[in-house]
Amino acid sequence: MADNFADRLFARVRETDSRLCVGLDPDIARFPTELLRRFGLAADSWASPENAARIGDAIQAFCLDVMDATMDAACAVKFQVAHFEAYGHHGLRALEAVCAAGRAHDLLVVMDAKRNDIGSTAQRYARAYLGPEDGPDRAAFACDALTVTPFLGEDGIRPFVDACAANGKGLFILVKTSNPSGAQVQDLQIVGTQETVAERLASMADGWGNHDNLIGQSGYSCVGAVIGATKPESLPRLRALMPRAPILMPGFGAQGAYAGGVRAAFDKDGLGAIVNSSRGIIYPCGPDEADYFGKVREKALAARDELRAMLR
Amino acid sequence: MADNFADRLFARVRETDSRLCVGLDPDIARFPTELLRRFGLAADSWASPENAARIGDAIQAFCLDVMDATMDAACAVKFQVAHFEAYGHHGLRALEAVCAAGRAHDLLVVMDAKRNDIGSTAQRYARAYLGPEDGPDRAAFACDALTVTPFLGEDGIRPFVDACAANGKGLFILVKTSNPSGAQVQDLQIVGTQETVAERLASMADGWGNHDNLIGQSGYSCVGAVIGATKPESLPRLRALMPRAPILMPGFGAQGAYAGGVRAAFDKDGLGAIVNSSRGIIYPCGPDEADYFGKVREKALAARDELRAMLR
Repeated sequence: MADNFADRLFARVRETDSRLCVGLDPDIARFPTELLRRFGLAADSWASPENAARIGDAIQAFCLDVMDATMDAACAVKFQVAHFEAYGHHGLRALEAVCAAGRAHDLLVVMDAKRNDIGSTAQRYARAYLGPEDGPDRAAFACDALTVTPFLGEDGIRPFVDACAANGKGLFILVKTSNPSGAQVQDLQIVGTQETVAERLASMADGWGNHDNLIGQSGYSCVGAVIGATKPESLPRLRALMPRAPILMPGFGAQGAYAGGVRAAFDKDGLGAIVNSSRGIIYPCGPDEADYFGKVREKALAARDELRAMLR
Repeated sequence: MADNFADRLFARVRETDSRLCVGLDPDIARFPTELLRRFGLAADSWASPENAARIGDAIQAFCLDVMDATMDAACAVKFQVAHFEAYGHHGLRALEAVCAAGRAHDLLVVMDAKRNDIGSTAQRYARAYLGPEDGPDRAAFACDALTVTPFLGEDGIRPFVDACAANGKGLFILVKTSNPSGAQVQDLQIVGTQETVAERLASMADGWGNHDNLIGQSGYSCVGAVIGATKPESLPRLRALMPRAPILMPGFGAQGAYAGGVRAAFDKDGLGAIVNSSRGIIYPCGPDEADYFGKVREKALAARDELRAMLR
């Protein structure tokens, strides 16, 4: 049986003393000019048949440079799949390559795909990212953890949980998202209870993760949750409903969350959660400035330090 | 401005007198042996580095054969993206090719991807499937319509709606899914209203689609909804809440829905909805039986006729 995901995650957090997850949302329109030029591209190049393969290569190079620049400042890297899918199958070829590279760098790799479907189809998505029951390394987009959307209830989540148990992988279930209108669904109050939809899902996620084959020596489960860092007011109650869940908090940085707002997600040892920042780190300056990836590194170190200071 | 999606869909329904959408969920373990052999594969071949490219080619061939066998029996074809993603970027290369082929066959192409994310990321998914505002043919996985999951509320749906308006594309928003546990989220009753979550989403979807640049001459909007064919008891009320929405009903056939249960989705002219069947059509017999795609055709004609009879 593979090592428990939660144990691997928090071992890495201790080792780096970093709760920072660097989010990779590649957008060639914002890539450094020098990098694009190396592949014969410009910021307004489109994924036409002539360009598609070179764009895939440029995305791969950009992600590798960001990982090289930030690997000791971050505990994890998060790939936003939409930004690869937008470039077609060559973008997804790059995704396969950078997943492998992230894991080779000892970074925990989170795939932000927000997949969801009925059980038999969810099983196919689980296989694509988390691997089948008979061997994790056979996943096409092999990662350490996947984000999923719980709109279809338990039978749409169960195949992902089973793949995590079999392969030592992790799950981050969307409970409360960072965008303004997430409240239109997630904050609805349920008749006959004191719960919102998000709170109900938090309780369900806690139940799905509360099994011996999912809980690590850290006491945390492989079944985690996404709670937007822009929604700190929801955190204490949601954390209380799912004490074992690793929490992934996106929205730090570009989406306007501040470090103090995320404290309630962490336990007394500073474990239990990781905080993602994407655009604020990977696009630190204009595309023509010198030492682009040095500036990426500075932003990552600053975010890591801000999170450290918050926990002190 | 491109032709309105709803008008194109229902013109195609009239032309073929078919409300059948053929669902393509490719699973090489169930492919005809003869087809696999042509590509040097067997039912238990895995997407290893040596096999991946040939598996992509076999998936492409299987989908093209199904489309050839069913094109005059169906109004649309629905690709379940998970089943391509499970085979990595070569599976997605096949998806690009079969999308193009579907459109060349005059089939309306529905991409069943159930994508969802915050606005800026939803925009990237919209671009991948529906195209950017400046040209639909530039979408990597160019289709006619996309399924999306509304768990993030309006700002996670808006980029998809905008892409539909710009490019004459369509959207099917998950409102009520065909799986048993969808009720855990979708049937929750909202405090202070007489609504369930699904009903609230139906009203919201109606509002999102109620704009001149989305409504076609048929009176239907480009913003449609998914309602599981296995949930006919929900149909009349949901239909009343979104009178302009084309409805995509999955779950016919293998998931146990029967034709009579879906009638309430259709208007007096037999328009307004399409019904999907996947496994019941594309896997009509064992992998070694003769005339495999002839049997696919028979199943598609039978499903088309069952739907025709129901509307008479």
